[in-house]
Amino acid sequence: MKLERVIIGIMTGTSVDNIDVAAVKIQLNDNNEYTFNLLASNTYSFNNGIDSEIKKAMLNTANTSDISRLNYAISIMFADIIKDFISKNNLNCNTINAVAIHGQTVWHNPSVDNCNIASTLQLANGSVLSALLNKTVISDFRAADVALGGQGAPLVPIFDYYFLKSNNNNVIALNIGGMANITYIPQGGGIDNVIAFDTGCGNVLLDEYTRKYYNKPFDKNGEIARTGQINYNLLNELLNLDYFKQSYPKSCGRELFNLSLVENSIYKLKLTNNILYSDVLRTLTELTAITITNSIKICCKSADVIVKGGGIKNNLLMDLIKDKLNRQFNIIDSDNFGISSTYYEAIAFAFLGFLSLGSIPGNIPSVTGAKKRVVLGTISRNIS
Amino acid sequence: MKLERVIIGIMTGTSVDNIDVAAVKIQLNDNNEYTFNLLASNTYSFNNGIDSEIKKAMLNTANTSDISRLNYAISIMFADIIKDFISKNNLNCNTINAVAIHGQTVWHNPSVDNCNIASTLQLANGSVLSALLNKTVISDFRAADVALGGQGAPLVPIFDYYFLKSNNNNVIALNIGGMANITYIPQGGGIDNVIAFDTGCGNVLLDEYTRKYYNKPFDKNGEIARTGQINYNLLNELLNLDYFKQSYPKSCGRELFNLSLVENSIYKLKLTNNILYSDVLRTLTELTAITITNSIKICCKSADVIVKGGGIKNNLLMDLIKDKLNRQFNIIDSDNFGISSTYYEAIAFAFLGFLSLGSIPGNIPSVTGAKKRVVLGTISRNIS
Repeated sequence: MKLERVIIGIMTGTSVDNIDVAAVKIQLNDNNEYTFNLLASNTYSFNNGIDSEIKKAMLNTANTSDISRLNYAISIMFADIIKDFISKNNLNCNTINAVAIHGQTVWHNPSVDNCNIASTLQLANGSVLSALLNKTVISDFRAADVALGGQGAPLVPIFDYYFLKSNNNNVIALNIGGMANITYIPQGGGIDNVIAFDTGCGNVLLDEYTRKYYNKPFDKNGEIARTGQINYNLLNELLNLDYFKQSYPKSCGRELFNLSLVENSIYKLKLTNNILYSDVLRTLTELTAITITNSIKICCKSADVIVKGGGIKNNLLMDLIKDKLNRQFNIIDSDNFGISSTYYEAIAFAFLGFLSLGSIPGNIPSVTGAKKRVVLGTISRNIS
Repeated sequence: MKLERVIIGIMTGTSVDNIDVAAVKIQLNDNNEYTFNLLASNTYSFNNGIDSEIKKAMLNTANTSDISRLNYAISIMFADIIKDFISKNNLNCNTINAVAIHGQTVWHNPSVDNCNIASTLQLANGSVLSALLNKTVISDFRAADVALGGQGAPLVPIFDYYFLKSNNNNVIALNIGGMANITYIPQGGGIDNVIAFDTGCGNVLLDEYTRKYYNKPFDKNGEIARTGQINYNLLNELLNLDYFKQSYPKSCGRELFNLSLVENSIYKLKLTNNILYSDVLRTLTELTAITITNSIKICCKSADVIVKGGGIKNNLLMDLIKDKLNRQFNIIDSDNFGISSTYYEAIAFAFLGFLSLGSIPGNIPSVTGAKKRVVLGTISRNIS
């Protein structure tokens, strides 16, 4: 064994709901291969109304003092969560080498703006968290890639590459979160051959529609959608979106895929009084499955498809994806592959932290568009 | 020689005027003593209207996207300055181990606010600067101390301690910038015996008054003030300020010491038509000298007083300080002591970066009020 480190990875998304925490033992063996064990994992919620302060910042209505204060408030919240996580799981604090934290994105503008400055802003201050925990903290993973002209995202593909790559088959890592994204690793390919991009909507349209029209958080197992019929007018209208026609690399978010897109399309097609809510959900599920599988088929003609993210719990969506991919595609839940589908990103950020501690670049320029590979993150050291 | 590193230190104050850059070779010798050589130094200005963007942020009128963008814009500006500095001074880029940057303070609220969160915000992102320079960067020096209940300031005293301490005499480091501050190191004392605090106004009242009433940037050599008379009513009114009666630790800024303080006092005393501008300047110079020397005399009855900061160029002020301290106080310009008075703080931050790279705490709890000593700063590594 060349190197072994235990790192706590923490992931929070732009939906400001869950905080995923994973303690991961990562090893680099004598053959220069990475392996890992998930030691513990838990999901936490945002507390003390901090979620509304974050949303205020994301809406660009926070001012200098709000940002300064929130940066500390989030750090204190994360410190409390990590202390609870260590205690709850009976982890030996001395064996934990570092904490790798994605941080809360409150602004992300990786494209050069009118003033010619791209930027991204993730809150939680590494130095503050390190001081509060007496631990080494790695934070601010997206900044360097954006500085070098990259999108600062996606960053998980390097983890996909090292832990999913195969000499026997092409591999597609499919993540179905709010948005859906894929990482394509050609059989026996090197890191520079990796392709990754957002395919479009994941659960976002299904969840938002179900929340508004059924007052439920999501369409459990796709049960409501199964009772509906595909409306092909609506389906074709949505499939006609420019985003789906663009070639990779590309990324998307809630500024495009949101409830207004669906409602405006229904209004435009004069379907408002002629479509059942369940038909809308069935159509959106179809849309999601088609755009995911079309993206996969652009990459390759056969592959092991390793699936993770909340979308794997939507049986209808998963059935449709399987139907639309022929038998050359072997679909596997990442849990069955040995990687937690729930904590996949938290584990990936622990791995990115492992790379940062070794001054090993974590971005893939073919994926993010950055000028070159670069060491990601900044390291705040405090050892009790 | 145990360890030798060349570090570029960069200091910018809250007046958003000059950017002081110093390349410093720092050594830790076999007797665990620190030494340094100043290899090069230059002063730069803020460019591209970035100073007005910074002032907007300091006035709390910047929003989330402004802060995100400014964080990158400042980083890019610093990267350009450092490249120019290395080139202009014919420094061998490969011999420079790191850049230590104070960053631009845009918010500093180290006292717990209504919502029970203290915070500070220095811009320039270490990871961005590191990516642009292909260099190790240490940044964000104040955050950890504030997280542990400290004021996040002053941080220079640890440098004062290691480079000015004496077994033969007490030492006072006197810095006369916008505000004036002193560090007291008792003869043969340890780091925990260090006392440091702001004595009150330094050049700020003199400079602001001269700018408004004489349309000159400052009272060169104190020449205008020398033509005036002390107005004792005004002097006593100002000496009566609560700040001067408080015991240390204490710190102050432009929210208290500004032109309004002077003008309001003159108005209150009905002196508006009965005082010459030169009398005001003479009185303010007297005030500054008295409050500095009273603070020194609170600390000790004899000392070597090492003076730095722009105030040393004001001959009248320096003469008054010498007059008010008896012969037990030996007053020495830091330049004569072998440390540049202009680049003192930039050199000190290079030293703080040296400490951070070695995971050595940089704060002094007796000075900042923090709960304990802590490693300052965060380290972003990229080595070409």
